[in-house]
Amino acid sequence: MRIGGRPTRSLWTEGREVLTFDQTRLPFEVHVLRLRSLHDAGQAIRHMQVRGAPLIGVTAAFGLALALRDAADDAALDRALHELATARPTAVNLRWGLERVATAVRPLPPAERAERAWAEARAMADEDVALNRSIGEHGQPLLDALAVGKARPLNVLTHCNAGWMATVDWGTALAPLYLAHARGLPIHVWVSETRPRNQGLLTAWELREEGVPHTVVADNAAGHLMQRGDVDLVLVGADRVSRRGDVCNKIGTYLKALAARAHGIPFYAALPSSTIDWRVDDALGAIPIETRDGEELRRVRGASGEVRLLEPETAVANPAFDVTPADLVTALVTERGTAAASPEGLAALFPREAA
Amino acid sequence: MRIGGRPTRSLWTEGREVLTFDQTRLPFEVHVLRLRSLHDAGQAIRHMQVRGAPLIGVTAAFGLALALRDAADDAALDRALHELATARPTAVNLRWGLERVATAVRPLPPAERAERAWAEARAMADEDVALNRSIGEHGQPLLDALAVGKARPLNVLTHCNAGWMATVDWGTALAPLYLAHARGLPIHVWVSETRPRNQGLLTAWELREEGVPHTVVADNAAGHLMQRGDVDLVLVGADRVSRRGDVCNKIGTYLKALAARAHGIPFYAALPSSTIDWRVDDALGAIPIETRDGEELRRVRGASGEVRLLEPETAVANPAFDVTPADLVTALVTERGTAAASPEGLAALFPREAA
Repeated sequence: MRIGGRPTRSLWTEGREVLTFDQTRLPFEVHVLRLRSLHDAGQAIRHMQVRGAPLIGVTAAFGLALALRDAADDAALDRALHELATARPTAVNLRWGLERVATAVRPLPPAERAERAWAEARAMADEDVALNRSIGEHGQPLLDALAVGKARPLNVLTHCNAGWMATVDWGTALAPLYLAHARGLPIHVWVSETRPRNQGLLTAWELREEGVPHTVVADNAAGHLMQRGDVDLVLVGADRVSRRGDVCNKIGTYLKALAARAHGIPFYAALPSSTIDWRVDDALGAIPIETRDGEELRRVRGASGEVRLLEPETAVANPAFDVTPADLVTALVTERGTAAASPEGLAALFPREAA
Repeated sequence: MRIGGRPTRSLWTEGREVLTFDQTRLPFEVHVLRLRSLHDAGQAIRHMQVRGAPLIGVTAAFGLALALRDAADDAALDRALHELATARPTAVNLRWGLERVATAVRPLPPAERAERAWAEARAMADEDVALNRSIGEHGQPLLDALAVGKARPLNVLTHCNAGWMATVDWGTALAPLYLAHARGLPIHVWVSETRPRNQGLLTAWELREEGVPHTVVADNAAGHLMQRGDVDLVLVGADRVSRRGDVCNKIGTYLKALAARAHGIPFYAALPSSTIDWRVDDALGAIPIETRDGEELRRVRGASGEVRLLEPETAVANPAFDVTPADLVTALVTERGTAAASPEGLAALFPREAA
């Protein structure tokens, strides 16, 4: 996607360096980070300068490749794996990315490992781009179908940031929107602010840079917009999906799904199939909801620093995700196609994984 | 209610001065304003240093009394009425408060008008306190009933600020909670932040000063809390109620009502009967929703100033209220008792007004 009109990815290489954006400064400032070592990559992951499960996985893979440039014997490989894996303890994609590179390089003599790791990391980045584009291709027809007969732009409500900055390119929920917009379908996106971390601001920034018409609203406004007939579909990403199609996503998604149901508005989640946890059937019972630091709610960061809303002694609760039960989900959009949010629907698209 | 352990009202008199709190500084700073003239009162209303429909009405009444001290002939009376009435063009209670004082003083000789206006304003303040306390008395049995058999505190979810700072004392939605707490019922209040203006912070401050256990959450968390069984009832105020019981209240109320319905949780609105618009049946069709300045969403104010979240050129929509249809409302709590949210329910309590 584009920044300032120039096509870019969220991570790329120049010579022996890995370049990415410092996402702790976005959307207020576009600052390019240069990762030159294991240490640089570990710090970027640890301090959430890179975020989004797919991007973290690819960054970790490159981090391992950078480490192997300096020392590539088995002990060095294991040290690097440990350092990167502990940078974000709960990120599943991080360990997946490391495992893939480690599996590829361990059988090789140390002298060949760095080059092979670099190639593997680059392949992973390219595969992520292709995968997300494929989500876009499968999602776009849903938008086309809902736009039929409308004399105005299609109104899409999204939540949080499931855009290209959370992946290497295209994003998940935003991929169908970017494709539809590029191909001339008139769309307008309602961007939900997404308190407490305000990831909606990043979504608004992405859409602006890509020229997609959009309007930012408080999370509280979703029901009112639907009540007025101003939302044609809800389209969000997912952090984890159960085998029957329950969607675990950013806190506040469930309220939007309930309102969509009340108004007969389709509710879609777009996600790579790696997000589906085939061991879990009932997400409500089985997926623990991460409770994050209350300071996220007590302080707000803006363009010129941050302000305190609540004193540290004020009790706050900060659940980071909620579960939208499958029966509120119209369909799931994956890289392999669109599936009904049911055990049968997902098994039809992914027979091997569901078995 | 109390600040720093000392009982106070949101407005009181000392000699010939009217004292109130500068609510633009709350909850970050407790600053007492002294209103000594028509001009002072007009400015306090205009700049939202006093807010909340009942408090605005009483402040305007005192403003008129202050004006009549300086000049009390018919021309001066009309000038003062005009200046105060235009301070907040859409505040219904403001005009009601002015009208009541004007009706009382106009028949009198100018020399007697100031004294009479002052007495009338004081009576209005006392009546508001009694009225809100009465809402509390009628609401408390609902809390008692829901608490029966619970081995833990009753969990109440509220939204925005319908507390004593929006009235002269007690508040509307918070009045039953203050009474229940004072009488020993164990309660815990979930305080919804209420973006974009964050009036939940004021509610949290009120509850803290009164010693009522509470926890602040992002507006997005309401559905998740209900899904986990952590909410026993929703209790909110109302800005306007239709004759059939549709509740127009702060944006985001409707999402909470939908979630409460999905989980079988009672949803109550507490309000003075002056809030009921007997000319309106279907609020969705008839009540225009105020759209406020987008800067409210683009900037956030905290303890140490404010930060910008979005540049002025980013499109935002800022609807200030939404409508919760009567069929999602379990009951309405008024100063005269609790009514079903239906034409018959309200007419039974208010036969004269409904006729």
